[in-house]
Amino acid sequence: MKLAIIGAGTVGKSVAQLANSFGHTVVAVADSSSSVVNDSGITVAEALDTKQESGTIGDEDPEAALHADYDCLIEVTPTTLGTAEPAFSHIETALHRERHVVLGNKGPIAQRYSDVQKLADESAGTVQFEAAVGGSYAVISTIRDIGPDRVLGVRGVFNGLANFILSRMAAEGLGYEHVLAEAQDLGIAEVDPTFDVEGTDSALTCCILANVLADGRTEYTIDDVEVEGITGIQGSALKLAREDGRTVRLLGEARGDHLQVAPRIVPENSNLAVTGSQTVVELDLRDAGKLNVSSSATTSRDVATAILTDVNRLENR
Amino acid sequence: MKLAIIGAGTVGKSVAQLANSFGHTVVAVADSSSSVVNDSGITVAEALDTKQESGTIGDEDPEAALHADYDCLIEVTPTTLGTAEPAFSHIETALHRERHVVLGNKGPIAQRYSDVQKLADESAGTVQFEAAVGGSYAVISTIRDIGPDRVLGVRGVFNGLANFILSRMAAEGLGYEHVLAEAQDLGIAEVDPTFDVEGTDSALTCCILANVLADGRTEYTIDDVEVEGITGIQGSALKLAREDGRTVRLLGEARGDHLQVAPRIVPENSNLAVTGSQTVVELDLRDAGKLNVSSSATTSRDVATAILTDVNRLENR
Repeated sequence: MKLAIIGAGTVGKSVAQLANSFGHTVVAVADSSSSVVNDSGITVAEALDTKQESGTIGDEDPEAALHADYDCLIEVTPTTLGTAEPAFSHIETALHRERHVVLGNKGPIAQRYSDVQKLADESAGTVQFEAAVGGSYAVISTIRDIGPDRVLGVRGVFNGLANFILSRMAAEGLGYEHVLAEAQDLGIAEVDPTFDVEGTDSALTCCILANVLADGRTEYTIDDVEVEGITGIQGSALKLAREDGRTVRLLGEARGDHLQVAPRIVPENSNLAVTGSQTVVELDLRDAGKLNVSSSATTSRDVATAILTDVNRLENR
Repeated sequence: MKLAIIGAGTVGKSVAQLANSFGHTVVAVADSSSSVVNDSGITVAEALDTKQESGTIGDEDPEAALHADYDCLIEVTPTTLGTAEPAFSHIETALHRERHVVLGNKGPIAQRYSDVQKLADESAGTVQFEAAVGGSYAVISTIRDIGPDRVLGVRGVFNGLANFILSRMAAEGLGYEHVLAEAQDLGIAEVDPTFDVEGTDSALTCCILANVLADGRTEYTIDDVEVEGITGIQGSALKLAREDGRTVRLLGEARGDHLQVAPRIVPENSNLAVTGSQTVVELDLRDAGKLNVSSSATTSRDVATAILTDVNRLENR
């Protein structure tokens, strides 16, 4: 497929670098101030070098990428709250042009689910967003195949950085600030980790899952989620839990109208007690047991792989 | 969809009982000596009562079910080695009739992969077999969406009974024979658990995964798998491992031409150290991390749910 990549941060760059090996062609990449477009395929290495050297990826307006000759738009601009712009408008443009969209960005599905579905229903294009759920590969399609009404609830560890911090604090007996600084040094944490550690990112994942489970009957946004982050967790609490064979994880849960993100005590050998920067999603099924999907998908290449798998899915269906 | 269920053991019965709630209609069920067929839908409860009381499910020959007016054949007869009959012939009949097939039975894909693919290629029907891989829901389709050439290897705990026995032995310090008897009392183990504890069932799963990874370039059967079961595991070995924060799991692995099933020492907090009768499949991805899918799908209702999810998948694609 011909791909236009909107967003040239670490994930966008990785998608561009890996696209070829997945058998796809990149015809456009846009950053916030420019774009590079070539309908027969851009030279990815060259464009990324240009970006590295000059700070901008190409000579054209960013909008030019939205109007390139692509089959699928990859939306990987930074997630925003509220209107989920500019991602929402990017999706709108692609669907109006009858093109497919694959999202890395969580905003539009978490915040404007029915608006996105309406646009998709009126388009020959479809919207895929597996990669927006904790680097997962098939949780959304699995829920849809099982049937959303047969999934009683979903919970899990949705944020890799929060999990990295809690795991390290518990394993090494270190304090929150110390481990956060370490994660920033390792490049796991952004300079501003607020979205991750305050639970906002996990809350967006909750909304996405709740919206898929509700299947259009109702719609959830981040205002419906009760959110508590990990910044107040004391090393002493982790130590106490550990002595009892337990640990603390930042769990997100979506079950009916109950949407919550909060630190929770879980058994150390629980499927939810994934370590390091892993994430996990657990589906609680009617008439059946639980299904867990965990992923060590934390680097930008991991997320890019999940996104490109979603592109393949468009071809395989 | 209209379903014909071939095989009326615990899984076949559960599929029949749950089919309606998934929106499907059962038009035929066959056991080894008879069948019940009604092109507008059988009364499942009545047929299962008849089976309970008389030992046979209906008045017709078993073959009548194969020729009923179904959209999808559900193959859940007992798995056999070698020619994988009679399951293979059941698949052949359905595909010749341009109908879909969903397999619970591992035999045909593990033993005669290219024969099945050839029949499917020549048919308007397709063959789905997600439920044949450790009660999983989307491992096969995920491998196909990622691209088989990007999956470097697959390993995991493929057999729930073997895992139940090893977990119980380790947790309670009990011997193999004791825990096996307990599992038989609980109905988790068959009277003859050979397939499970000798590693044969896990080896068949290895073959299925290896065949999907090879994607037609080569073909594997159980003769290609080096197999060692759990019957020789001593409680003392588990105790030693535990003192070191480790445990023993019966792992299956498929990586290139290396196909192996054997007890392995793994860290207790490893994603592979699932407890009880859970199973787990771990995909090792090129350019990305590991993806784990674990399932507590052990009862016949769990497997039936996985099978009916596979039926839904036919409609959703």
